[in-house]
Amino acid sequence: MFTELQKSLASRYQIHFNDVELLAEALTQANYINEHPDYQGHDYQRLEFLGDAVMQQSTAVYLFKRYPDWDEGQLTELRIAMVQTRSFAALSRELHLDQYILLGRGEELSGARQRDSLLEDIWEAFIGALYLDQGQTVVMDFLEKIMFAKIDEGFYDQFVDYKSKLQEWLQKSGAVTIQYVRLAEEPLANNDQLFVVEVMVNDQVLAKGSGKSTKAAEKEAAKKAYQHLMAKGHDN
Amino acid sequence: MFTELQKSLASRYQIHFNDVELLAEALTQANYINEHPDYQGHDYQRLEFLGDAVMQQSTAVYLFKRYPDWDEGQLTELRIAMVQTRSFAALSRELHLDQYILLGRGEELSGARQRDSLLEDIWEAFIGALYLDQGQTVVMDFLEKIMFAKIDEGFYDQFVDYKSKLQEWLQKSGAVTIQYVRLAEEPLANNDQLFVVEVMVNDQVLAKGSGKSTKAAEKEAAKKAYQHLMAKGHDN
Repeated sequence: MFTELQKSLASRYQIHFNDVELLAEALTQANYINEHPDYQGHDYQRLEFLGDAVMQQSTAVYLFKRYPDWDEGQLTELRIAMVQTRSFAALSRELHLDQYILLGRGEELSGARQRDSLLEDIWEAFIGALYLDQGQTVVMDFLEKIMFAKIDEGFYDQFVDYKSKLQEWLQKSGAVTIQYVRLAEEPLANNDQLFVVEVMVNDQVLAKGSGKSTKAAEKEAAKKAYQHLMAKGHDN
Repeated sequence: MFTELQKSLASRYQIHFNDVELLAEALTQANYINEHPDYQGHDYQRLEFLGDAVMQQSTAVYLFKRYPDWDEGQLTELRIAMVQTRSFAALSRELHLDQYILLGRGEELSGARQRDSLLEDIWEAFIGALYLDQGQTVVMDFLEKIMFAKIDEGFYDQFVDYKSKLQEWLQKSGAVTIQYVRLAEEPLANNDQLFVVEVMVNDQVLAKGSGKSTKAAEKEAAKKAYQHLMAKGHDN
């Protein structure tokens, strides 16, 4: 079973995982071992301990180098959005790791195989195993391809509530009036519509955003306004 | 000033720090920059963001490899004792980093230079700078010498309350009677005394400990008993 995963990693990501037992360890849940006393392997928890730290450092190093002008608050904010349960669970699913987990019977029946909290642990354990098998550089290259590239696709925006962040920031020194004004609605080719919105504070326009729903357009406007204000420095 | 630190790092630790500006950044506090508008450098906060993650991973990798038989609970416990304010502040003092900090005037007057919370930040920023200047391997070798070696000296025991941990663990499944019995008191060469204590649970001896005070001897007995119980596995 794990040799199948080994092959898939090689063909999809050019990762030639050497130690298949290590791969198995990353995908074995504790109760599976309790239920199979003859099973020789270990469960994933030690590798999860390791992989958690590897994910933290890899992400911090990447963000530090990529955003030389960001302060530690902005770096921390994006890191929090990236290094968290839903983000890691999505990566586990992308690699189909969920299909390979050796799971206890009770967990299987209760639907744990598709639970984000398990898939988060599994992702960390997998990265711990990859670090041991292939070293830091391979982990970093792999994360750049599969994870850090998602920054540019706006993937992590879904984990950041930019409207709340903007409001919080603008109201630090007292109440202000924030308004989202719908400017236009343009039909798109595939029967979708494009909404354009601008966000205003005390009648001054901060930014424009567009999207396939008003909600998406408002979020984009808030994100642009927030990031613009952050880039200008922290004086309010 | 920072070239002096550069020389001291070379002579004491054989670390040849290349970028003295990076070293300065790791030791510059934000208010110093506010008070010196002509100062060209940055404050330490971005490097602290980086170094925090480097400390987490370096410590996790070291513990994972050094203790192949420990479970993730034991690994986490020791990591928490190692990666924390007092531990990092002690390392900053050991390198005399406190003497080099460019500090705001208000902070200086309020005694921040000797405050553990500042010295923790400075340690993380210094490690962030060392990582950028010298790479992961040099950081790891340096930490092995200056920090991880302290595990064997029992340095981190001061941050772990073994008597509470033992009690908590023994009483997981109900009340038990835990007793510390003083066995002997032996005079030592330098007018000190050596106390020997054993810890018993429900009249069964768990472990012996010795030390220069009853308190130290009890702590050692609790540590031995706790680690022995942990090594036997988590069945209570």
